[in-house]
Amino acid sequence: MNTNDTICAISTPAGVGGIAVVRVSGPQAVEICDRLWTGKALTKAKSHTAHLGKLSDSEGNELDEAVATVFRSPKSFTGEDVVELSVHGSVYIQQELINALCDAGARLAEAGEFTRRAFAAGRFDLAQAEAVADVISADSKASHRLAMSQMRGDFSTELQHLHDSLLELVSLLELELDFSEEDVEFASRRRLLELATKIKTTVGTLARSFRTGDAIKRGVSVAIVGETNAGKSTLLNRLLRDEKAIVSDVHGTTRDIIEDTMTIDGVCFRFIDTAGLRETSDTVECKGIERAIKRMETARIVVWVVDASRHDQIAKTAAEVFGHISDGQDVVVAVNKIDCGNAAATIEAIAGLTDLSAISVIEISAADGTGIDKLERRLVELSGANDISHANVIVTNARHHRSLVDAEASISRAIDGLNTSLSGDFIAQDLRETLHHLSTITGTITTDTILQNIFSKFCIGK
Amino acid sequence: MNTNDTICAISTPAGVGGIAVVRVSGPQAVEICDRLWTGKALTKAKSHTAHLGKLSDSEGNELDEAVATVFRSPKSFTGEDVVELSVHGSVYIQQELINALCDAGARLAEAGEFTRRAFAAGRFDLAQAEAVADVISADSKASHRLAMSQMRGDFSTELQHLHDSLLELVSLLELELDFSEEDVEFASRRRLLELATKIKTTVGTLARSFRTGDAIKRGVSVAIVGETNAGKSTLLNRLLRDEKAIVSDVHGTTRDIIEDTMTIDGVCFRFIDTAGLRETSDTVECKGIERAIKRMETARIVVWVVDASRHDQIAKTAAEVFGHISDGQDVVVAVNKIDCGNAAATIEAIAGLTDLSAISVIEISAADGTGIDKLERRLVELSGANDISHANVIVTNARHHRSLVDAEASISRAIDGLNTSLSGDFIAQDLRETLHHLSTITGTITTDTILQNIFSKFCIGK
Repeated sequence: MNTNDTICAISTPAGVGGIAVVRVSGPQAVEICDRLWTGKALTKAKSHTAHLGKLSDSEGNELDEAVATVFRSPKSFTGEDVVELSVHGSVYIQQELINALCDAGARLAEAGEFTRRAFAAGRFDLAQAEAVADVISADSKASHRLAMSQMRGDFSTELQHLHDSLLELVSLLELELDFSEEDVEFASRRRLLELATKIKTTVGTLARSFRTGDAIKRGVSVAIVGETNAGKSTLLNRLLRDEKAIVSDVHGTTRDIIEDTMTIDGVCFRFIDTAGLRETSDTVECKGIERAIKRMETARIVVWVVDASRHDQIAKTAAEVFGHISDGQDVVVAVNKIDCGNAAATIEAIAGLTDLSAISVIEISAADGTGIDKLERRLVELSGANDISHANVIVTNARHHRSLVDAEASISRAIDGLNTSLSGDFIAQDLRETLHHLSTITGTITTDTILQNIFSKFCIGK
Repeated sequence: MNTNDTICAISTPAGVGGIAVVRVSGPQAVEICDRLWTGKALTKAKSHTAHLGKLSDSEGNELDEAVATVFRSPKSFTGEDVVELSVHGSVYIQQELINALCDAGARLAEAGEFTRRAFAAGRFDLAQAEAVADVISADSKASHRLAMSQMRGDFSTELQHLHDSLLELVSLLELELDFSEEDVEFASRRRLLELATKIKTTVGTLARSFRTGDAIKRGVSVAIVGETNAGKSTLLNRLLRDEKAIVSDVHGTTRDIIEDTMTIDGVCFRFIDTAGLRETSDTVECKGIERAIKRMETARIVVWVVDASRHDQIAKTAAEVFGHISDGQDVVVAVNKIDCGNAAATIEAIAGLTDLSAISVIEISAADGTGIDKLERRLVELSGANDISHANVIVTNARHHRSLVDAEASISRAIDGLNTSLSGDFIAQDLRETLHHLSTITGTITTDTILQNIFSKFCIGK
């Protein structure tokens, strides 16, 4: 990909609107626009000034009245000369303007090429560049906050700290290699171990935050499980404020997976109603239960709905539920039908089956809405959305997560080496690998293939 | 509708994109934006300058990085203070920004309110304001040129000339009323008649140009008619470069109306294939022929397809076609199947039935494509698209057309009055009516209802 030429693209959403903005960036941006321009010469325009004029096509036919805003290098989004042409939002004008710009010497930008140039110009690092796409696609308060935090550079700052600590570690290690007397080595190794362990903890915390970050970015999945007729579909409908699922007194009413999203307190949840867990000879219901278990295993949060009027029968379902839950999943027991059942006895029965401190228990009546607000508040807490802050970086990007997991593995090997008094050379190799994995996140170390892969997922015009 | 407050709206097309622009206009535009702004104070910004900063919502949560471009009254689109906020094109950010602006004192703009304010501020007249919507919706070169011409003010200039002439006419008439001696009146009346006739001609030409203007704006309708098996569907498919209509040797293959659009040389055509004209007892076919005749009657251009191999049988179809054609419609006879028929004999037969100078005759072979380019060129000529120019104003707006027709009626009555030596008072009344009708076009005379009606058809944000 040539980066010395001038690119152009429609940067506003596709379609008809009041206005549309075409962005032109590159060394010839101002000259190319000036060729189509009637009005004050753009070549003489100062940076950050807007000008009213007329745009013509390459044959000199008037295309539109327009406002051209000139941004001079390096004070622009891409770091290059940039002109933003604001025209009437007709599809015809937008398309013809792009044609005219290409006739005048620009070329159509590839997906994400403006952001890629901004990255190349050092305007921000790769993690921040990737956050631009996340900011654009974020559709809830929580996912927007996460993306903004990353674009602002909170994650990058954290990585910079890790990078600095790793460099300190490497230089201490080199000191050890230079002065390989016994006592220096001993003192130094303890310090090295401390530092390495601290790095490992931070990397591990970041890596594990991906569970929360990914859930918030894509919608927190909540599987609603439990025995038949416990009121799962009634709860789903209540949470969605909609008659999404068919509700009846017949055991085994729900067989297909029913799901829909709902934003609560700025967090997008994906609620999944599942077939009731019971032994059955019905083939369709069996398949439904199989799927229910699969969804329970992959959900971020599992809401186990228990019928308070049938608390004497929960042991079997409890075994089924806890048998499929793994680390990193949160469990909320919704004690349902508290209006006609015995909530206290139900909770006691649950306490006899599992450690109550590891789960949440909330009394509800899905039918009349009692306790739903409390359940919703608990779901928002468990989502981790309230933990988003400058100080608490949450990773949302699968690529970053992979790099962090790799970095955690390398630093763990380095720690093992320090503990087993391995030669400094080997330890240094592990530390360099850790540095490498972290550097791929910010793009200090990167390849054209990685960049191509990242920016091809952007929209054209960004 | 309050026009002293500050309005805001998303001005770019709906949806997700690289960037989106929110426009704020009104006396408090700069102050309101400044309340959400972190960066150089916008209140101190000069007109036509762009600034990088951060936008927060009303609770102080960071919403986005943004570029704010400030336009100071009166040098802005609306004539008021305007701030254009360019943000990342996420639906969440766009919506939250509108909410934040409303919290800070702005209100959501009504449809077309920015343009309506520009009109109210005298930035352009009503005909030009209406052209803004046409510019945005124009989707072909010809409709775009028409809308641009009107927005630029070509039509307004023409109306201004008419207005001046009418005022001259009125003052001459008043002179006559003051000096009501016989010979003064006689000389004056001749001059009055000359002027009035000239005005009537111009108004009439403008009114009649609507036929062309409306066709270009909405797509030029071309009905393809003729006897069964003449090759109408083959011609339609050829023009559309698509197998849209089913083609067979069976007479009466096409019964439903089949239509589609195609842009030729920048002009959008709506081609309508119809059932072949013949006597038939088939009920479905009869209904098809009824519809064919209806579409033939309303089409801008009628293409009569004649089978050159059956030229001895055209008399009856000719009568059917010409019996349904009226003034203002153009007829093209497409002499088809020239590869297997006798074109010369066919043209001779047509000449015996109608005046060849009033129609176009083009020899084609729809099957192998011969002559199609010639037919297309003729259609473009007949569309009137090539007549669009500064000097030759073409009316595209139904409201303007009605006013012109009304103005033509009033000026005709004035001419009748002059010819029959009617009292000057009555003639003056007709002239005032003519002036009134023309003034409603530019909006010199208008009502809130008319404005409401016009601008409600705009999009919000324009």
